[in-house]
Amino acid sequence: MTGTIRFDLPQSAIPTHWYNIQADLPRPLPPVLHPGTHQPVGPDDLAPLFPMGLILQEVSQERYIEIPEAVREIYKLWRPTPLLRARRLEKALDTPAHIYYKYEGVSPSGSHKLNTATAQAWYNKQEGIAGLTTETGAGQWGTALAQACSFFDMECVVYMVRISYEQKPYRRAIMQSFGASVTASPSEATQAGRAILEQDADSTGSLGIAISEAVEAAAASEGKYKYALGSVLNHVLMHQTIIGQEALQQMELAGAYPDVVVGPTGGGSNFAGIALPFLQQNLSAGKTTRLLGVEPAACPSLTRGQYAYDFGDTVGMTPLVKMYTLGHSFVPPPLHAGGLRYHGMASIICELWDQDLIEMRAIPQMETFGAAITFAKAEGIIAAPEAAHGIAGAIREALAAKEAGEKRVILFNLCGHGHFDMSAYDAYLGGQLSDYEYPQAAIDRAMAELPQVG
Amino acid sequence: MTGTIRFDLPQSAIPTHWYNIQADLPRPLPPVLHPGTHQPVGPDDLAPLFPMGLILQEVSQERYIEIPEAVREIYKLWRPTPLLRARRLEKALDTPAHIYYKYEGVSPSGSHKLNTATAQAWYNKQEGIAGLTTETGAGQWGTALAQACSFFDMECVVYMVRISYEQKPYRRAIMQSFGASVTASPSEATQAGRAILEQDADSTGSLGIAISEAVEAAAASEGKYKYALGSVLNHVLMHQTIIGQEALQQMELAGAYPDVVVGPTGGGSNFAGIALPFLQQNLSAGKTTRLLGVEPAACPSLTRGQYAYDFGDTVGMTPLVKMYTLGHSFVPPPLHAGGLRYHGMASIICELWDQDLIEMRAIPQMETFGAAITFAKAEGIIAAPEAAHGIAGAIREALAAKEAGEKRVILFNLCGHGHFDMSAYDAYLGGQLSDYEYPQAAIDRAMAELPQVG
Repeated sequence: MTGTIRFDLPQSAIPTHWYNIQADLPRPLPPVLHPGTHQPVGPDDLAPLFPMGLILQEVSQERYIEIPEAVREIYKLWRPTPLLRARRLEKALDTPAHIYYKYEGVSPSGSHKLNTATAQAWYNKQEGIAGLTTETGAGQWGTALAQACSFFDMECVVYMVRISYEQKPYRRAIMQSFGASVTASPSEATQAGRAILEQDADSTGSLGIAISEAVEAAAASEGKYKYALGSVLNHVLMHQTIIGQEALQQMELAGAYPDVVVGPTGGGSNFAGIALPFLQQNLSAGKTTRLLGVEPAACPSLTRGQYAYDFGDTVGMTPLVKMYTLGHSFVPPPLHAGGLRYHGMASIICELWDQDLIEMRAIPQMETFGAAITFAKAEGIIAAPEAAHGIAGAIREALAAKEAGEKRVILFNLCGHGHFDMSAYDAYLGGQLSDYEYPQAAIDRAMAELPQVG
Repeated sequence: MTGTIRFDLPQSAIPTHWYNIQADLPRPLPPVLHPGTHQPVGPDDLAPLFPMGLILQEVSQERYIEIPEAVREIYKLWRPTPLLRARRLEKALDTPAHIYYKYEGVSPSGSHKLNTATAQAWYNKQEGIAGLTTETGAGQWGTALAQACSFFDMECVVYMVRISYEQKPYRRAIMQSFGASVTASPSEATQAGRAILEQDADSTGSLGIAISEAVEAAAASEGKYKYALGSVLNHVLMHQTIIGQEALQQMELAGAYPDVVVGPTGGGSNFAGIALPFLQQNLSAGKTTRLLGVEPAACPSLTRGQYAYDFGDTVGMTPLVKMYTLGHSFVPPPLHAGGLRYHGMASIICELWDQDLIEMRAIPQMETFGAAITFAKAEGIIAAPEAAHGIAGAIREALAAKEAGEKRVILFNLCGHGHFDMSAYDAYLGGQLSDYEYPQAAIDRAMAELPQVG
């Protein structure tokens, strides 16, 4: 058990381009539709919310898009991130599998989210935008955007899902340390928030509701603010491909190539970040790596949802996107992986799933926390509950390899640390958590409210 | 502003030996005295509390002591740690100085403390000890020891200073996640704790009190447990020298050599870790780097204390150590840098200070938090309040360089992140903190209770 277990790249190896999977998709993504007319939206429809630089990325069919020098300079504060071999975990599991993990938690915001936050802030800054509005669930995204805005001297207005706001006061404090203003959602500050509170004054909120509020706040700002989304959109997933691109180089340093790549899926950007560059190798270089997304059993968009046009938010303000969805009115139970409480999924991930180019698995909460504790005791790192879904998936793969008696190479994306999620660990260790499976009837009810398209 | 700003070493560059400054001190350290007889203590006197492997290190005059292979294997989980040039901070300060920082916060426990915790747990494990007792202030040390014990399948019993226990519930949870048992100190579990509570039922505790409890718990365990200290002792400072040894290699990669090395001083191990290998260069290689320790103005052991024999703990159970002390009965104000609330200082640091081989500066709380926010906005990292003293010291140096119009090279040790200290930032941002200078009369009172030696 000697030798190197961490495979470092020099800063000169930070990717110079993002990889755009749209260039390699077997069929193009379904068009995004206007919520009123149900006609495909064009760049101008999106212009009130996003800068043109990002809108063009959203629809680009170019395979590689150059990363601006100023963004790469910020990336250097924490990139390349390390890739480690989890030898102690392998030993704890007594598996012949070789387990590697890419660790995005070394970013100053504590997760992969800063990769896209930095890019988004920069493109907005280029077009003279004063600040960004956004939503945050677990707080990973809000923290990342607060930092990114701070890097470029911009304002940041965060609507934070109320249950996270209450469970994670220190998340609020860290965003405020970077100068962001943070409001619990649903709030009285927007029409969308007030409408929810009228129906349910005790609403614990959801990402969908918070999105509605942040979108409204940007749209009502008369061009002062634009809106930033931490996942789901094509350009967001693309910004995360630097993770997989680095991992490809690092696996080469390690002298191995993954049989399976695992990542948690909330909105899809974390899984996409590690998986898409490996998918490109499958599509273009004859590789056969399995790409496995892991979602929480309590919010199973892909494994129990339906591939249909739906709103990205809860109130129905956003364009319609074809995606595997539980219905935009779906409010998931208050599971502790707040970042995975989204009713839908990135269009790109949905297409890949629909075309059998990726695999999906739903894993329950208790198994996930158990996996996180096993990992922490072996490798030292307390993972974010979202990230723990990736660990749980990797451990299932490692145990399957043991069962099969095969030396398989497993790579997973450890997308963030859990330093602001200790209340969830506290609840788990104190026996206060249990598994929750969303009743089919409730999903059916939400499905009945899907918009009728075409 | 292009080029590399992070200077990485391969894992093969993790130091193979700790550097023992005792071999190079101009005069030997004053002997440690038995609290009853006032005679120098020998290894046998320390054996109830520490394993012989560490006792021998405590008194060793060897210049280099080999790091056991098993300890280096654990180090590989996070070492070598990065060294970065803080270009964005330089720009924010508009200083000609070049500022570098060694970042120990990437350790899974979040600070440099895991360097010695790992070593201490291993040496105890070698001698068949079942578990370790300890105290923790801010929680950095308790977290590190909980992790280290978990790595080697040992028990861990932590007495946590009550004010930190209350301000940092998630610190408790992280220690418990690694299987440690955590008790607020002063507690009813020990005679020492009960004695304090009888005098003051609302005591917020101190490191000194918690040490008394942890020492008593080990001594009363009939050999099952031994005690572990996170700073102050010679072997602890020695374990941290891997920081400075790595930094020497990394500064060479950066093509620079520091004019001044800065580190915060609580018990002394963090400052020693970065400074001692550079001091060796001063002593043996003709270098003239200034070595600057920074302590909080509210607990100014070196700048306002007296060089005298005193107890390491509050109750007077430990051996007597000659050190700059505010008196063992000194209870500092509840400043948020809990890890710096210690009445004394490592013997090694005191000797170096007494011999003018290092410099010391006391910096107030408000300036320290202000420096931390400036650093966070520039470099992204939220520092622990303890670590922020190092930032504040480095910023003073950078501004002095600007004043002098000189390009000076500054290196500081960013010993840990502040993810579990957000309540302190919250208080700072909310205007609830202020500076506190300990009244001379109170220091004089504590000094009057110093033991009379010789």
